[in-house]
Amino acid sequence: MSASVLAILDFAASPEGPRTLGHRLADPDAPQLTVADLAATRGDGVFETISIGRGRLQALEPHLARFARSAAMLDLPAPDPGAWRDACTAIAARLAELPEAFVKIVLTRGIEGGDIPTGWALGQASPDFSAVHRDGLAVALLDRGLPHDVAATSPWLLAGAKTLSYAVNRAAVREAARRGADDALFVSTDGVLLEGPVSNLVIRRGRRLSTPRVDLGILAGTTQADIFRWAEREGYETEQAILRQADLAEADAAWLVSSVRHAAPLRAVDGAAIPVDAELTARINAALRARVD
Amino acid sequence: MSASVLAILDFAASPEGPRTLGHRLADPDAPQLTVADLAATRGDGVFETISIGRGRLQALEPHLARFARSAAMLDLPAPDPGAWRDACTAIAARLAELPEAFVKIVLTRGIEGGDIPTGWALGQASPDFSAVHRDGLAVALLDRGLPHDVAATSPWLLAGAKTLSYAVNRAAVREAARRGADDALFVSTDGVLLEGPVSNLVIRRGRRLSTPRVDLGILAGTTQADIFRWAEREGYETEQAILRQADLAEADAAWLVSSVRHAAPLRAVDGAAIPVDAELTARINAALRARVD
Repeated sequence: MSASVLAILDFAASPEGPRTLGHRLADPDAPQLTVADLAATRGDGVFETISIGRGRLQALEPHLARFARSAAMLDLPAPDPGAWRDACTAIAARLAELPEAFVKIVLTRGIEGGDIPTGWALGQASPDFSAVHRDGLAVALLDRGLPHDVAATSPWLLAGAKTLSYAVNRAAVREAARRGADDALFVSTDGVLLEGPVSNLVIRRGRRLSTPRVDLGILAGTTQADIFRWAEREGYETEQAILRQADLAEADAAWLVSSVRHAAPLRAVDGAAIPVDAELTARINAALRARVD
Repeated sequence: MSASVLAILDFAASPEGPRTLGHRLADPDAPQLTVADLAATRGDGVFETISIGRGRLQALEPHLARFARSAAMLDLPAPDPGAWRDACTAIAARLAELPEAFVKIVLTRGIEGGDIPTGWALGQASPDFSAVHRDGLAVALLDRGLPHDVAATSPWLLAGAKTLSYAVNRAAVREAARRGADDALFVSTDGVLLEGPVSNLVIRRGRRLSTPRVDLGILAGTTQADIFRWAEREGYETEQAILRQADLAEADAAWLVSSVRHAAPLRAVDGAAIPVDAELTARINAALRARVD
């Protein structure tokens, strides 16, 4: 049985903009959205995915902060952090028996022509990623189409916002599969490594961990940030950098990191093997699982 | 009262892939989608909007053909044209008293983890665009971030597919509004005019109508195609071309054309006035309204 818990956020219009009333639990298998919701017709909303370990929400506050930043980039009403925190906490409590679960929170522009958003939080059991953590991922490098400075030049392209418009991210994973790979890694039109469709890149060279700079129009990784904090305590140097394919080819190890899959080591890039650091992968993932906000 | 008619498509799994059973009318104001539908969580689906004049569907077949092309670009199951035609026809019949209406058809990848798509057709009255047709639109030129050859080099970026992932298209319209304009016109990173967020560009120079080439990663316009067919009968030359800002600045007239708004003349581009051709605008829109498939 795959447990699934849904909380619907309730909003009311007010002269100062929509007010969040709170949440109510609802049936996740029953229809909850109309076909005129702008989530469904325009991918017009933002989301976050927060992992839950035995009922503990991991890195909730950084996720809520990024949720607010994404909402601002889309000119959505600012999410009420207290109301979203409550909904996540209620869901986490109901999934406390699961070793690993996650909650996805979604804020949409609501029904077209209306003046209140739609919001929900859906908690589910995490898939078993032990094989990926052990064997690693083969990734295909795919052009993201955008130049590396897009976030500065063209904010309306929403680079760096976590939006519901993820059709390209999913198409990239299918293209990677066509190339015999497990996942994609995006590269800017000018050859700078960016991010995976739902993950950040971390590479290790000796005792230094590097990740692409967030001003490259990529998502600021909450999991990546937690890994760096842990690694600094362990004596690693860390840096945000401009990384290119050569840096990856020469890396001692590399990972795609994300909230639910945690740190998935890369074993190949475009068919060329790169080393899997099994010991460090295990230590990173143990540290991620042990997080408490 | 704004009439609204919803038809839900029914699908069944089969060994050869999902089979379309037909449609049923449903309450457009009632929830119909679960929060796990990939339309709502990933903008993972495709759509078309078909205008209806006094119950007549306009350019239905080209729209159904483009719907199928978009679905193929997203590796979605091929839409059954008969079933979608029936749903559109049923909706058009119920909106026959309206002078102008439209039906939006949507095919999504369905509920995450499932094996059948979700589909619906929503018919509504068209807004009144007479002021826009008369006064014209001020548009802001906005960088689309992508180079002009993206469709050939990087098909996973889905340039030219009409997907539900339209957050950027909507953000561009908000950015245009911030600049005091009514709509946006996208330009490639290398300065080639592309399309509006939900429309195609047509410009007139003397007796020649030009539109950006469809190999530029833009949507092949059904309304643009109908306008060109009509214009050729009227003795205009027509061409698909590489157009740049200078071509627009020197144009005798220009329009953003789309299924529901029809031909909306431009009156300014980034604040610089361009001529509105009121007579030709009226003739084009009369021809569009008179279309029968």
